[in-house]
Amino acid sequence: MKVIEVHRSVTDSNDRDAQELREELLRQKTLLINLMSSPGSGKTTLLSKLVTDMKEDTRIGVIEADIDSDVDAVKMESYGAKSIQVHTDGMCHMDAGMTRRGIEELGTEGVDIAILENVGNLICPAEFDTGAHLNVMILSVPEGDDKPLKYPLMFSMCDALVITKMDTRSYFTFDLEKCESHVKKLNPDVEIFPVSAKTGEGMAELENYLRGQFHGRIDEN
Amino acid sequence: MKVIEVHRSVTDSNDRDAQELREELLRQKTLLINLMSSPGSGKTTLLSKLVTDMKEDTRIGVIEADIDSDVDAVKMESYGAKSIQVHTDGMCHMDAGMTRRGIEELGTEGVDIAILENVGNLICPAEFDTGAHLNVMILSVPEGDDKPLKYPLMFSMCDALVITKMDTRSYFTFDLEKCESHVKKLNPDVEIFPVSAKTGEGMAELENYLRGQFHGRIDEN
Repeated sequence: MKVIEVHRSVTDSNDRDAQELREELLRQKTLLINLMSSPGSGKTTLLSKLVTDMKEDTRIGVIEADIDSDVDAVKMESYGAKSIQVHTDGMCHMDAGMTRRGIEELGTEGVDIAILENVGNLICPAEFDTGAHLNVMILSVPEGDDKPLKYPLMFSMCDALVITKMDTRSYFTFDLEKCESHVKKLNPDVEIFPVSAKTGEGMAELENYLRGQFHGRIDEN
Repeated sequence: MKVIEVHRSVTDSNDRDAQELREELLRQKTLLINLMSSPGSGKTTLLSKLVTDMKEDTRIGVIEADIDSDVDAVKMESYGAKSIQVHTDGMCHMDAGMTRRGIEELGTEGVDIAILENVGNLICPAEFDTGAHLNVMILSVPEGDDKPLKYPLMFSMCDALVITKMDTRSYFTFDLEKCESHVKKLNPDVEIFPVSAKTGEGMAELENYLRGQFHGRIDEN
């Protein structure tokens, strides 16, 4: 497994770079998903479960973006996913140029869905188009049902919201209906998936959604 | 309760502004604490407990910084703390100028310890001196014991680390010793306080530390 160092892109035209990357990946038949959340929301555990559950029909590759460390990429490799670690040199988000470097190092050969595990942060990543076809965010039950009120941009711009650690909801006071209602006010079209990677609850629905996105956007293009 | 909108400071000299604010607050006999963590780590619950437990001998004022919403400041007022909400207009951190605006609106009259609840983010707030006398960070048990590896700057620059939600450690696999050892490698002088605001575990030690910091830095000056 390689670790690469990426730095802030020299170009100011992030939106154009993102659009170019998105189109190139369509031609290469790889769906790119930008996965965002705060630290400790269970991104890596969720990814491990997706890689394992879907490996018979969908080959997932993982780009792990972190300020430092390679613990996540090492973990993903142990689950059999093609993976690459990207260090952001202190940067709090990934942009399109940094994502392109990650994609080039990962390679799209044999990768149906490439998942960019963005830096753990609910603020800055929401402001930069990475070139992904789909923006997915994770909120974990221990973080609380009021988070859509506090980080509105992230909840507004995602295509899907995965609510993780649902197995802990008897321990924490998390009102799923209230949370969904906050999110739908900001983002009426968002798809919401409450799951537990530990018990498997809700995973089939999420996996079918991802398969549908892959076939709808890639196979039909 | 007032809500104020703050924007990026016009001055580039954040470090100088921070130092000036720090000295002014010493003369006004108010200790300023910059409290940082990721979203959902239990900052507001911890603060409520501190305000309630310490009100007989230490008057705590709270500056709640958020991108949006005033849910936290309303909660803090209900616990009897003097409090002010600061909106950062999308900014992912507080700087010294923004903190000064918050302090001016809060007022230091009758405030022994002013706590700035920084924006929920483990990255950007670590890069900006707010003018605080003490930097305290929170890590919650559900976030995981590997976070020091992933957010080294934040763990390196804090004076104290509070590990919250200790009552949930039977539910999550969180190795306290491993976590402490990661943190001490980055920051040998850090003080670490494992607590649960729910059960009260460890709160007396943290409160005595805060009292000691107040008396050591303010009374003796």
